[in-house]
Amino acid sequence: MLFEDITILDENLDVKEHQYVLTEGERITYIGDTCPDATGHKRYDGKNKLLMTAFINLHSHTPMTLMRGYGENLSLNDWLNKKIFPYEDKLTSEDVYHGTLLGIAEMLRFGIVSTSDMYYFCEDMLKAFLESGAKVNLSRGITCFSDASYHDLPAYEENKLLIREYHGLNQDQIKIDMSIHGEYTNTERTILEISEHAKEAGLPLHIHVSETESEHKECMARHNGMTPIEYFNHLGVLDSRVLAAHCVHLSGEDFAIMKERNVSVASCPASNLKLASGICDVKKLMDYGINVGIGTDSVASNNSLNMIEEIKLFALLQKVRQNNPAVITPKEALYAATKAGAIAQGRPDCGALKVGNRADLIVLDKKEPYWTPVHNLINNLVYSASGTDVCLTMADGKILYQDGNFPTIDVEKLARVQALSQKEI
Amino acid sequence: MLFEDITILDENLDVKEHQYVLTEGERITYIGDTCPDATGHKRYDGKNKLLMTAFINLHSHTPMTLMRGYGENLSLNDWLNKKIFPYEDKLTSEDVYHGTLLGIAEMLRFGIVSTSDMYYFCEDMLKAFLESGAKVNLSRGITCFSDASYHDLPAYEENKLLIREYHGLNQDQIKIDMSIHGEYTNTERTILEISEHAKEAGLPLHIHVSETESEHKECMARHNGMTPIEYFNHLGVLDSRVLAAHCVHLSGEDFAIMKERNVSVASCPASNLKLASGICDVKKLMDYGINVGIGTDSVASNNSLNMIEEIKLFALLQKVRQNNPAVITPKEALYAATKAGAIAQGRPDCGALKVGNRADLIVLDKKEPYWTPVHNLINNLVYSASGTDVCLTMADGKILYQDGNFPTIDVEKLARVQALSQKEI
Repeated sequence: MLFEDITILDENLDVKEHQYVLTEGERITYIGDTCPDATGHKRYDGKNKLLMTAFINLHSHTPMTLMRGYGENLSLNDWLNKKIFPYEDKLTSEDVYHGTLLGIAEMLRFGIVSTSDMYYFCEDMLKAFLESGAKVNLSRGITCFSDASYHDLPAYEENKLLIREYHGLNQDQIKIDMSIHGEYTNTERTILEISEHAKEAGLPLHIHVSETESEHKECMARHNGMTPIEYFNHLGVLDSRVLAAHCVHLSGEDFAIMKERNVSVASCPASNLKLASGICDVKKLMDYGINVGIGTDSVASNNSLNMIEEIKLFALLQKVRQNNPAVITPKEALYAATKAGAIAQGRPDCGALKVGNRADLIVLDKKEPYWTPVHNLINNLVYSASGTDVCLTMADGKILYQDGNFPTIDVEKLARVQALSQKEI
Repeated sequence: MLFEDITILDENLDVKEHQYVLTEGERITYIGDTCPDATGHKRYDGKNKLLMTAFINLHSHTPMTLMRGYGENLSLNDWLNKKIFPYEDKLTSEDVYHGTLLGIAEMLRFGIVSTSDMYYFCEDMLKAFLESGAKVNLSRGITCFSDASYHDLPAYEENKLLIREYHGLNQDQIKIDMSIHGEYTNTERTILEISEHAKEAGLPLHIHVSETESEHKECMARHNGMTPIEYFNHLGVLDSRVLAAHCVHLSGEDFAIMKERNVSVASCPASNLKLASGICDVKKLMDYGINVGIGTDSVASNNSLNMIEEIKLFALLQKVRQNNPAVITPKEALYAATKAGAIAQGRPDCGALKVGNRADLIVLDKKEPYWTPVHNLINNLVYSASGTDVCLTMADGKILYQDGNFPTIDVEKLARVQALSQKEI
């Protein structure tokens, strides 16, 4: 595809106008201000459009689209125990496949091409990802409250199967991660065993960390004053492959340890507000030089997968948290939603508009009144744009969303989610 | 217009399906589950659509669309003194007219039909409102740092002219309010004189109150420990016609006084985050029974007029501020963005979908993937929808926005804002 005479955000997220961008196969092969020879390639008129690298969602539970708007306005305990957990107990393969497909459609609609996801029924989820062409770092969420060994859990065999059958499929469209759901949902034994398995397999390890104050404090009470980060560090779990989701209640030495171990963070601002968890200290993480990306978390606690909304919130919340309107620039927020995610996902050739990189691209239409005037286009993108301005989403050079259509997704299947989602609890 | 077989939010914001709604002239004349005789009326197919009362923006400075994304990431003082004030010094009638028209277009796009606005060049603004058909409660922002009398200021003559020439125009499309910009920007003399003029004229009085901590504390230092609310109360300013914008840093007796005086509040969640002002204690205001609406504030500090985004933020921020995910239900947030605004604007026949009320209506398209599934449609509307789902906006029975078109607005004029906005400071 040749994008002609289009405004772009370049690899440094700087605006360049009147550019030509060529994709061939799964790669970006040309970016410049003159038109390349593109005989035989489709052409895309760049008038009034903005081309940039696609978004990366660094923390999600995609099938939970099934639970959109289900059981709202409850305390966290009631929400989980009276609504979400009983609902999840009734989920079937068919539900998860369809819910995942709907979640993927929503992500593509909002310019997300890759997501770091933690859930179960993983093969059903992968079927949906493979069909759609969207990328995923998928981990089987593991909790263990008994004295069982990880090696005796079904999840162990499942992880081995996922790695053997799916890891690296379609030039890394599918990557398998591992998961320790959290400190509070696992025994020390399983934490050590899962961590060892992830290290042996060379896989990222996705963990919920210090999402709520009670999780953070109860960990300290259980483990001689160690915070979740200190505890995981003490057990030797932390390294540059670890992705810590939420990190709202970090304290003490947590920041220094995370920097030392080169842990990445997935901050989920909307979900952290909606569940009243708090506001992550993103500014401090960034000041420590820690890699921070952005996650939507699940639709059940957001309730959308609108990355532009999430980026705006990510920036705005820091201003009020730090009592300083100057912190977190639009460019820093955009970097978090793109390159920082690619780093954490172990996708070095993604997350930036650069020759040689994967053609993971989005186009935004600037026709709506809120794109005028332009004093600084990045400010308009982060603070004024709507997620629905995304009019084209491409992964590895393939168009997965364009102008209301999902060429790889059977929309009849999306419509089925309504019926599948109506479980009687 | 006859809306046929459409899902509605009724006057209590409850969902009703398969309804018929008829508008005749400026009023809603029928709501029911059978099709009325509507010979000669246009018909609107309600399939996959949601009809509800239009949004009311309770605090804005519409012409500041001109400054969208201008001078970002600065401390409040630098932003105002180095960017906004010097820019405003150069504004012309032509700028304000065009900027207002763009702001109106953006509001209509996002389902807002009426706004409580405070700015200057008021006749130029009114020209844009009159042309577009959008409603406004317009106040001339007044600041006075000298020992002058309000009666000697140009604003006094301007207020008299606005009331005489415009107040009540087109069946209250235009309402003139008065304004004391704030305690910190006026002398006691002008505050008393403006308040007196507003009371004599029976007009609402729009005031910035306790937006920032420093404003709140400096008032206490100036006035024997009195907060802005206590000070205005002490001066006899407060009554049921007063609209207090922001109210982020209320303290002590402020809540009780506001309830006693029946003051309304315009909460501006996005702007309060972006300028690092803080988070208004909306829950406490509501617990006191105070009427709380939602404002976008200006585009310069938001940077959009997306009411659905604002409604979501309004609800989410309270959850984290109160440390309780159960507070502020979607219905309470929707009420704030509709009926509460109408009450504060003195428009008793607006803000609810009810026979006899003004036909101030919006239609949302539910076709995007994030509207599926529906467990509770109001949850989807508040937490999942995009502002751009608004596909029709009607004020007093007239269509002002439909499917990308603004029948009353010359879009060539909107395009002029780009050139007009590029001021060299």
